[in-house]
Amino acid sequence: MRFDIITVLPGLLESPFAHSILQRAQKKGLAEIVVHNLRDYSTHKQKSVDDYPYGGGSGMVMMIEPFAQCIGALKAERAYDEVIFMTPDGVTLNQGIANELSIKQNLIILCGHYKGIDQRIRDLFVTREISVGDYVLSGGELPAAIVVDAVVRLIPGVLSDETSALSDSFQDDLLDAPVYTRPADWNGHRVPDILLSGHQARIDEWRHEQALERTRQRRPDLLK
Amino acid sequence: MRFDIITVLPGLLESPFAHSILQRAQKKGLAEIVVHNLRDYSTHKQKSVDDYPYGGGSGMVMMIEPFAQCIGALKAERAYDEVIFMTPDGVTLNQGIANELSIKQNLIILCGHYKGIDQRIRDLFVTREISVGDYVLSGGELPAAIVVDAVVRLIPGVLSDETSALSDSFQDDLLDAPVYTRPADWNGHRVPDILLSGHQARIDEWRHEQALERTRQRRPDLLK
Repeated sequence: MRFDIITVLPGLLESPFAHSILQRAQKKGLAEIVVHNLRDYSTHKQKSVDDYPYGGGSGMVMMIEPFAQCIGALKAERAYDEVIFMTPDGVTLNQGIANELSIKQNLIILCGHYKGIDQRIRDLFVTREISVGDYVLSGGELPAAIVVDAVVRLIPGVLSDETSALSDSFQDDLLDAPVYTRPADWNGHRVPDILLSGHQARIDEWRHEQALERTRQRRPDLLK
Repeated sequence: MRFDIITVLPGLLESPFAHSILQRAQKKGLAEIVVHNLRDYSTHKQKSVDDYPYGGGSGMVMMIEPFAQCIGALKAERAYDEVIFMTPDGVTLNQGIANELSIKQNLIILCGHYKGIDQRIRDLFVTREISVGDYVLSGGELPAAIVVDAVVRLIPGVLSDETSALSDSFQDDLLDAPVYTRPADWNGHRVPDILLSGHQARIDEWRHEQALERTRQRRPDLLK
């Protein structure tokens, strides 16, 4: 699976893709993540990619031409399943959308910055608008990294333990049960006895009850 | 405002804090972001920070002792307003929570990894659990960066244009109106005439209508 991310801040995305699961997925050849500097596609002498908004107001707006050039160059190389724009007014990312994207082949992700991007980019090129949540960020770079992380870990073979992704929160609409590891007693704070009992069936039952109870308390909306 | 982030992957967070608004906020002395390597607080020879889960099952669980050591060392230096744990079963981050956190002085943010962290860390040290959304990620590092970004940009003086954060999506429960910049005509795709009219009152009215209409179509839940 290939991700082409278009941004004015390619450096911001260096370290998130160079560690942990995303690094291993790339080394295994299961994911290719290419970050493009939007300025390389500017037709201006000063490599500018933004300009003042029509109608006045604060903030700068990203221009259509550099995005059009970059997207055009990419599409000349291969077919893309989606051109995704990260924006707080997009559809809110959830595990279902991550699952859906994980079976695609090639995705372009546009990162906005400043006040926003020229609406015509959204009208003409973007096929899907995704938000990571109801909060405002400095740009679409961290949200793009979130999408890549959420999606790549679902690609078969990426996680070392095949059962791990399937048992994660949200995959079965239940939050996880509490987990514990050694020591069994930490300054008088003990691990629940059941987990030390060795009765696997009772442990599984306890975990299911705990997961249900935690979901009921924290996220009753997931149970309906 | 100071953030102390505790993680097993400090390198993953290098580039997000070294660019754009977060970099400028630190240079201006408005935000201090310190990333701590949890392994430095391991009491094991091999600097391990995780162990098998009690009761069996896949994935590793992060141990209590390194977190206790690191949090203890930090608290010996200064008082903290909150110890935040990034977790998909926490309260979902929104702009209201970002606003609330932006008036704090010192925050500790714990990043989980692997299958999760020993429940006793949550019971004994964590004062607030935050999720960035209903999706599973490889760890709490990107979510921690999201929280820092959402919060730091609200600190007075961080954004160059003081009105910019206040006019963002969600601050008034309305999504943004479409924005446009030059050229007025791009391959026949024109900017709406109203924005070129010069009638500021009518432009403001149009923008408010567009913001309302976009919110109605995309996020009617924000209007109730």
